[in-house]
Amino acid sequence: MFKGKINVTRLLVQKFGGSSLADTDKIKGVADIITTAYDAGTQVVAIVSAMGKTTDGLVALANELNSSPQGRDYDMLLATGEMVSASLLALHLQSRGYKAIALTGFQAGVRTEDVYNTARIKDVETDYLNTLLEAGTIVIVTGFQGENSKGEICTLGRGGSDTSAVAIAGALKADACDIYTDVTGVYSTDPRIVPNAIKLDEIAHIEMMELARLGAKVLHPRSVEAARRWGVKVRVRSTFNLNDEGTLVVDEAMMSQDSTRAVAGVACDKNQARVAVIGLPDKPGIAAHLFKTLAEKSISVDMIIQSIGQDGVTNDIAFTVNTWDLQNAEAVLKPILHDLGAREVLLDDNVAKVSIVGVGMIDRPGVAASMFQALAEAEVNIGMIATSEIKISVLVSSSQSDKAVQAIHHAFFSDASSEELVPSKLGY
Amino acid sequence: MFKGKINVTRLLVQKFGGSSLADTDKIKGVADIITTAYDAGTQVVAIVSAMGKTTDGLVALANELNSSPQGRDYDMLLATGEMVSASLLALHLQSRGYKAIALTGFQAGVRTEDVYNTARIKDVETDYLNTLLEAGTIVIVTGFQGENSKGEICTLGRGGSDTSAVAIAGALKADACDIYTDVTGVYSTDPRIVPNAIKLDEIAHIEMMELARLGAKVLHPRSVEAARRWGVKVRVRSTFNLNDEGTLVVDEAMMSQDSTRAVAGVACDKNQARVAVIGLPDKPGIAAHLFKTLAEKSISVDMIIQSIGQDGVTNDIAFTVNTWDLQNAEAVLKPILHDLGAREVLLDDNVAKVSIVGVGMIDRPGVAASMFQALAEAEVNIGMIATSEIKISVLVSSSQSDKAVQAIHHAFFSDASSEELVPSKLGY
Repeated sequence: MFKGKINVTRLLVQKFGGSSLADTDKIKGVADIITTAYDAGTQVVAIVSAMGKTTDGLVALANELNSSPQGRDYDMLLATGEMVSASLLALHLQSRGYKAIALTGFQAGVRTEDVYNTARIKDVETDYLNTLLEAGTIVIVTGFQGENSKGEICTLGRGGSDTSAVAIAGALKADACDIYTDVTGVYSTDPRIVPNAIKLDEIAHIEMMELARLGAKVLHPRSVEAARRWGVKVRVRSTFNLNDEGTLVVDEAMMSQDSTRAVAGVACDKNQARVAVIGLPDKPGIAAHLFKTLAEKSISVDMIIQSIGQDGVTNDIAFTVNTWDLQNAEAVLKPILHDLGAREVLLDDNVAKVSIVGVGMIDRPGVAASMFQALAEAEVNIGMIATSEIKISVLVSSSQSDKAVQAIHHAFFSDASSEELVPSKLGY
Repeated sequence: MFKGKINVTRLLVQKFGGSSLADTDKIKGVADIITTAYDAGTQVVAIVSAMGKTTDGLVALANELNSSPQGRDYDMLLATGEMVSASLLALHLQSRGYKAIALTGFQAGVRTEDVYNTARIKDVETDYLNTLLEAGTIVIVTGFQGENSKGEICTLGRGGSDTSAVAIAGALKADACDIYTDVTGVYSTDPRIVPNAIKLDEIAHIEMMELARLGAKVLHPRSVEAARRWGVKVRVRSTFNLNDEGTLVVDEAMMSQDSTRAVAGVACDKNQARVAVIGLPDKPGIAAHLFKTLAEKSISVDMIIQSIGQDGVTNDIAFTVNTWDLQNAEAVLKPILHDLGAREVLLDDNVAKVSIVGVGMIDRPGVAASMFQALAEAEVNIGMIATSEIKISVLVSSSQSDKAVQAIHHAFFSDASSEELVPSKLGY
């Protein structure tokens, strides 16, 4: 009789964020999680962030001594935070009788581009890691950093430890990459706005990537991109609630059959501003001139809509920028209004972008209609609309954005089971 | 007419201790010192300790997580303190428009033994340092650390930054190595005991080494040993009093002609205890048995005296150990008393070792007599005497040690000019 196979995980990458390592008691808790997996016969590579707010402290010191700290030496400074947490964790595991070693990003074979402060990981050389793991050693690796072709320390930018974990998991072909944080997983929306938001058991990489870009802070967009590229099964879960299995971030094709939802989540980005250039002549090259000028000043543009102006002859072009780019955009556009032949520029800071994301909407033509219907019933006016294969975004007035999110969430998740949530712990 | 030569220093190594880098304002002050030398046309390599009490903080964290932190990962932890101060200093120099770079010990080519926590420097590879210096770059190097043959970070033990500075100065053939600290130099004795102790303008390596071993904390003994080995001219001076030239530590042969003093300093070590083994049989092998037993338990023995016992037949052997070894010594000796054939062991914790050190005493037979005469006049009883080429030590009762130091200092330095001193800032 077939008794079933005991499913032992061969190799697990576990990543622990700063809040999971904030003090020595929390470090002991992390050691519990690691040794539980190790004692069950699993090889473990643990990727660590800096303890608590350590990196913020280093940044503050640097700002006292340099008005715009950057470059090689700034990376040497910032890299120390993870070296402290990694070595402390290794020392603690050793005191419990485990074989453990702390490796810097470069010792662990993490190779990056020749870029400081925001480097991307190019490759992970795994020979040394594999040798250690085969010898039964628990390997602790500093997140957020690697080594460039010159042998210099390069950091990956904020949120980089997630990316380190995913890249190392991918290179080692780990069975999974568990991202331990202070929230229990990825939610259908911000529970501070919708108290009965639901925790998702599963989400596709591409959905997570969009939600992360749209403001869900639980995973850095770049780490999700890396998970997709390296084909890594990522699980987001809480260090402080081990009974909850968290959210599995997987390739779309790997998702459970019963995951038939059209929408994975509702996101709201309040850092949006609307720029409208009014009365542009209807001739070729105008839009190109406009957006090239903005791009030259590194102003990112999101939604774009061109419409026929009120006079029926000229065009209006409206687009959104981040609020922190708004003044810059105005300063760039004012001097070229005459060249463009435009009448005026209108600015609106009181807007928010509300989006739904889901791979399921590809096959479901009614999703957009349901979203607009929900907004209409809630009497929310839609300013702009932009769509992609797996995302629909609308621009609404800031004052109506919470109402918009609630109405849309209700439309798509009303029949889902809700659970008790502590909004402040949910990473939004 | 000969106008004299302008003496430009080609290459200077400057070392800054933790108190000189305790906060961002102090780091700015250190940058002033560096740029003053650089602007005068001197190449500068600055060796830095960790900021203020940073290392103590890291040690405390490690102790919370591991009852005896040690080894490779402890070194990774401790090495971060100097990385922080070095990179901050480089970032600040850059913000002032200087070309500056922060190097870890291993990036700077400091190669150590394969020993963690207390490694010795084997060699300094200077190619990269020289390339940087020739390009006009101010080079900041983390003190206290290097790399072993396996490419791992090794620290040099407490006081190791002084040794880093001296070794790098020696390897680069620097004109001088300035050790910036919070005291103005090396003093003839502890100014808390003798308020008119004088600052020495010059001291020989060998004298400094003995004084450091005897308790003068201003320089680590190992760094003085390195200075002698590498032939480095070391100057100890204060970060906070740049008008004072400090104390020059030089090879005996390089000392000024007018430096005719017999004694460089008077030291007092209160961490001494006396052990007397009474009534030993007068036969070969007894002393060997006794001291071999102590050595096997890693108990260091300092002064040793054998004398004929009160009965005129047996021998007494008295020796000194550090106070923290006294209980251990007793526990080791009690069980072997019978084997040794000894009558009893007497322990005395209330003793202090007072020493005079000076290369000048080699040619002056009257120095010991003057010391004993001074003690006799002060009515201080001498318990034991030990001499070397450049040192005479006596054991006195703890209660009389200050009086002994004062009397001896008066005998050898009474005609020297005294100056205003702030005892708490003198590093004893």
